[in-house]
This record gives sequence, C-alpha cells and structure tokens, in this order.
Amino acid sequence: MIKVAILGYGTVGSGVYEVIMNNRNSSEEAKRMEVKHILDLRDFPELPHSHLFTKDYQEIVNDPEVSVVAEVMGGLHPAYEYTKQALEAGKHVVTSNKELVATHGAELLQLAREKNINYMFEASVGGGIPIIRPLTSCLAANDIYEILGILNGTTNYILTQMISEGDSFEDALKKAQENGYAERNPDADILGYDACRKIAILASLACHKNVDCDLIHTQGITEITLEDVEFASRMGYVIKLLGCFKKLEDGIIVRVSPMMIPKDHPLAGVESVFNGIFVKGGAVGDLMFYGRGAGKLPTASAVVADMIDSARNIDRNKPLIWNKTEENFILDYKEDILAYYVRVKGNEAAKNAIVSLFGTVEIISKDETAAFMTCVGKDGDLTDAIAKLAGEGVEVLSAIRVLKED
Amino acid sequence: MIKVAILGYGTVGSGVYEVIMNNRNSSEEAKRMEVKHILDLRDFPELPHSHLFTKDYQEIVNDPEVSVVAEVMGGLHPAYEYTKQALEAGKHVVTSNKELVATHGAELLQLAREKNINYMFEASVGGGIPIIRPLTSCLAANDIYEILGILNGTTNYILTQMISEGDSFEDALKKAQENGYAERNPDADILGYDACRKIAILASLACHKNVDCDLIHTQGITEITLEDVEFASRMGYVIKLLGCFKKLEDGIIVRVSPMMIPKDHPLAGVESVFNGIFVKGGAVGDLMFYGRGAGKLPTASAVVADMIDSARNIDRNKPLIWNKTEENFILDYKEDILAYYVRVKGNEAAKNAIVSLFGTVEIISKDETAAFMTCVGKDGDLTDAIAKLAGEGVEVLSAIRVLKED
Repeated sequence: MIKVAILGYGTVGSGVYEVIMNNRNSSEEAKRMEVKHILDLRDFPELPHSHLFTKDYQEIVNDPEVSVVAEVMGGLHPAYEYTKQALEAGKHVVTSNKELVATHGAELLQLAREKNINYMFEASVGGGIPIIRPLTSCLAANDIYEILGILNGTTNYILTQMISEGDSFEDALKKAQENGYAERNPDADILGYDACRKIAILASLACHKNVDCDLIHTQGITEITLEDVEFASRMGYVIKLLGCFKKLEDGIIVRVSPMMIPKDHPLAGVESVFNGIFVKGGAVGDLMFYGRGAGKLPTASAVVADMIDSARNIDRNKPLIWNKTEENFILDYKEDILAYYVRVKGNEAAKNAIVSLFGTVEIISKDETAAFMTCVGKDGDLTDAIAKLAGEGVEVLSAIRVLKED
Repeated sequence: MIKVAILGYGTVGSGVYEVIMNNRNSSEEAKRMEVKHILDLRDFPELPHSHLFTKDYQEIVNDPEVSVVAEVMGGLHPAYEYTKQALEAGKHVVTSNKELVATHGAELLQLAREKNINYMFEASVGGGIPIIRPLTSCLAANDIYEILGILNGTTNYILTQMISEGDSFEDALKKAQENGYAERNPDADILGYDACRKIAILASLACHKNVDCDLIHTQGITEITLEDVEFASRMGYVIKLLGCFKKLEDGIIVRVSPMMIPKDHPLAGVESVFNGIFVKGGAVGDLMFYGRGAGKLPTASAVVADMIDSARNIDRNKPLIWNKTEENFILDYKEDILAYYVRVKGNEAAKNAIVSLFGTVEIISKDETAAFMTCVGKDGDLTDAIAKLAGEGVEVLSAIRVLKED
C-alpha cells in the first residue's frame, strides 16, 4: 500500500479524500493508495473516517509509513513549514497551494531534488486542467515564448455576466458571491492577485527561473464598466482578465490586467467559471487548455493525479524545477507592444484632440461618450499619449489594453 | 549522451531532426541527445548531416549505443517489424504512427512492459497537442467517460471553408489539396479512417482495453452539402467531423461521423486545420485540448517530447497500457442517444409525414427543401423513423447526427 496524509479538510481536502475513495479502479496506484492521516484543527465525529483525523502534525511527519503528503490547507503558514518538514523527512508533497508555490516554489523544488523525491503542484494553476505536466513534459522540446491565461474563474464569471446578461460589476460580483464563486472578501480575485500567483508559476516554469509575484504588474477588473463591455462588443472584442507572459530577446514581460481580445480568439469563448490557458511554443505553435479552474472535485482530481504520479516515481525526482536568480530578467511592462482601447467624454474638442494625438482612428460614440482604439505601440508610449489627452482637457473614462495577434 | 535513431526522413522525420537540433536548451535531456542514425531509402547528399543516413535497419537495431528510436515512417509495414525488433533489442520506441498504434498498440505496449522500456505515441493523436500524457497521467484519478474530438485537420479545414466561405465540398477539398492540407488521394481523411484510428487510440486509453478500429462505425464528410451547412447555421449549429467515445454501464459506444454541434460548444470554435479534443472526467468535469493536429514541427514537437521522456525514464516502464480482450464490450452504435437533423424535398405532404412520424417539430424551409431536428432518441429508432419517412414517399436528402448535451 501507498500510505498518504491529507493536510486540511476544507473544500479541496475533503474532495481529495472523496476522489481517492471513489476512483480505486482508475489505476494500479489508485488501488494501492490508503489515507492514513488527515490533519485538521476541527473535529468531524460524524464522519465514518473520523478516526483518521489528528490535530498533531508531528504524528504525520514522524510516521515512516507515510510516503506522500497532500498539502491542501492554503496560505503561507504553516503550510510552508509543514511542506519543508515533510520533504526533509523524505516524503513527497503535492499541493494546490498557489500562494506557497509562487512564493517558495524555487526553494521547495530544490529541497525535493536534494532528497530525490517530488514536490508537485498540478492543482495550483487551472484547477483540474492539465497544464503543469504538459508544459514540463509534453512541451519539453519547445521554447515556450508566450502564455495568455484566463486563470481566475471568479473574475471570468463576473465578466461573463456583464457581457451576456448586462449586469453591472457590482451586481455580477453579488451573484458570484451568492453562487459560491466569490469569497465574502473578493479582493484576491477581483484585484488580480490570484491570477498573478498563477501566471508567476507558469512563467517560472516557462523560463526555468523564479518569477517573483511582487515584480508582476497587476491590475484587477474593478474599473471595468458596462459601457466598456458594450463598446468592446461593438468593436468585435470581449474583455477578459488575462495573465500574460512573453519571452523577448533580453528578458520577459509578465503582467495581469484586463484585456480586450477579438471575439474569434479561442480564449474569447472561455466563459463563466471556466479557465483557458493559451500557450505558444516554438515548434508546436498555438495550444489551448480549457476546463474548470476551481471547485472541489476538479481541483482534487489534479491533487490525486499528483499523488498517483508521486507513487509511480517514489524513488526518483522528476525534472520539475526553477532556480532563484539575482539576475534582473523581468522587463518593464511598459515595454510591451500592444494597443489600447480608450473611452472619453465625447465632444468635438475631444475628437480633435484624439486625432491630433493618435492620428486617424475610428471613433464610435454612444450618448455622451466616445471610444477608439489606438494603433499598436509601446505600452508606455500609449499611456503617455493617453495622459496627454487628459492634459488637453479631455475626460478619459477608461483605458484598456487590447490584444493584437501577430 | 543519449544516442537516438530516426526511422524515416519525410515531413515528420526531418522535423524531428530539426526540433532536436534547435531545442538543445529546452531541457537537460535535450542537451544530451545525439542523433546517431537516420534510416531512409533515399540519399540526401546535400545535407550537412548526410553521413548519418543508412539504408540498413540492422545497423540501427544492432547498435548497442542507440537507446531511443523514433519511428516516423508511417504505415504498418515495415514499421511494425522494425518497432518490434527495436523493443526486443531493449530500445525505447516513440512514434507518430497512428495506424500502427491503433492496430498493434496492445501488443507493442505489452512487449515494452516486459522489456521494462517504453513505447510512446503522444504524436499519434492531435499532432503536437498534449493529450496522451494528460489522459494517462494528469487524469489518472478520473474515470474518463466521454471523449468528443475534432481529430482530423483536413476535414475540419474543408468544413470550415464550407461554413465560412460558402465553398462546395469539392471546391473546399481542392483548396485543401492546393494548400498541402490534403493528400492527392484524400480518402483516409474525408472518409473518416484517420479520425477512426485516433478515436480508437483514445478509447483504448480511456477504457484500458483494446478498441479495434474495425468495430468502429465510421462515416466521412463526403455527403455534407452546402445546404446542410446553411440550415445548420440557421438552427444555431455547425457541422464537424467528430470522433466520439462514450462509456455506458454495459459497454462503450465509439463512432466517427459528421455531427451538428451547438455554436456555443467549445468545439464549435475549433476552425481550419486545428484539432480540439473535448474530454469528460468523473472528477474533473469538462476539459478541452486545442492546437495544431498535424504539420511538420507540431508533430515533431510531440515526438521529441516522447524521446526526452524516454531518456528521463530510461530504466523503467511508464504506466501506459491497454489489453487485448476477447470480451465484447463495444455496443452497437445504434444504441447511442442523440438527435438527428433531417433535410427533405419539401411540400405539404412531406410536412404532414414529418409531423405524423416525429411529432410537432419546427420545420424550416428554403427553396424546395425543408429541414427539422428530431427529438432525442436512440440512434437506431431515429434512423428507422427516417427510413419510414422515405417509405411514405418523402425524398430524404440528408440526415446528420446532432450532439445533445445533458
């Protein structure tokens, strides 16, 4: 038998237990897997497996029979300390904890390598969508030079409601909370922090170097209005919150921000709580991975797959690593090449100012407002020009980045 | 160094050489990979690596330094004999040869297991799209109960041309041939045989049992007309050639046929030569994998990824297998539950016959023809009813299956 422990019996943890118990026939290793301990501070006397629960982590880390630990507690502490202790004790650790992977991934992967075991985190990005393993294994012969991801289901649900139901941001957020798609405090989602951790993990994998979340320009969706959604639609676009990674000659650009994407782009059809991750590889060209980016069973499915893979590689470290580096390889996001959609309070003077600053662009209007798209240019140059527009007395109501495909 | 041999220097084989040479920095194993032999009956004196070529397979199979062989010749013979000999000699074999995998996969996988090496075929389905490894590794904790795949780029290109350009089938096929997307003899693509091999491989993986191509009901796209494409669009559907796999309580249903799918289904947006594979798993829910299903570099990317994975698992057999079985577990395709779109030569008598056989359905007309969709029912019952329609003197012009989501 392969004896495992689950740290945390919340949504994901209880899902992990359920998936292990219900999928015994899916593989040889699933058949041989036995949950020996579950760590949680709460009591669950009503559960048939209540005898598995413990409040004492030392019981798990000191149990030589336990070979795989699923850390699904979330948060940095004590998850970080527990993970380190487990790896030091020679136990494989798998996790859905994107915050921990994004923050301490380099160190924990290095520790796993030294101990010849594995630290796996398929569930940390895209929930149940296979993405970590495809990037590291199936695309091993590719230079991954661009990733565009709808990485957060909550914000994608909110934007989809705004686009298809005409809900305001506030109403859509309320619906998301009522449906359990958003936390009572939704900041981590709507301000883009969750997407930031996920693109940090994908970027680190794509360039084999640690990409620090704190260096990623991150912007949420709180300023997106229904007017923008409608103008976008008239222009043939939809607004999505995108995590973006691009490899350039002298470094990388990483960013999280709302972007307008053409309606015929494969990511445009990724609706509601679904996630979509669009990857460009040197040899393989364009790929997209689509599925449920969160939820109890999809996330648990990825955690248990990692547990099975750990069992299959019980005596070896799989090649999955990125390194801490002092080198400054993250370029200023203002260097990125893209376009902007701009919406202004519209009148003749505004239109003249637009034309003098941005050349001949198509301006479309509704009521008191006018909107246009800039030509393609450097992010920094375009925002400078937009600031000049304001300097000339034009009231700029919104400015959203536009994805331009080569 | 990891010394490898390439069998066949056609489109894929030359792509494999190119990807190996150009991606030295993508991983440790890529750095250590050295092409020692290339097997081809032709001479390539102009190539800088012409000294690697041989016409004698024994030189490769008897070279103890060669540990990985990429079989990219295609066809059953001598690919089958060469693969067997290589595996028997203890060499890992990777391939893009879907015909061989679909036909002799069970035997070759078993042989690889006995020899504690690997037979890998990520490139055999979906070109560069990661699908084999996600199914067997990332979804190891899932019961895969349904797969719907746009598995053939040629037919998808033809159908996309018909849908978006209004080309007839014949014109679209001609364009496909001019663009190099279709062979001069396009039968394997347009009659559905290529898609059949691919769904056979996916189905075998999903149920761990050998699914014989000969038992798969296979229908191509040669009878799809522009009229059908237009009626489909008015009804909110697009026509795609789909490989379908469904697990039911008492067996499986596997089929290749044109199907109408709703325009908002993720597969509907998979256009031109792209492939899309939609997978339903017990825990993970709906997933889709999207990318280039063919082409020199995408396919080579998957072949080289398998070569790297073989190098990483040089001393062990990865869990990838399905078994030959005498058990009859493939159900009659007529048992499947779906709907039909029917187009008939339309007049009052036809409409009356439709209503008397299919109940109140919405009938839409254009010129001399009328079309409708049946209710959901058993495939066999519905085709029986459609035959009765003909029996009552109605000229049935076409009948196409319709995907009905639960």
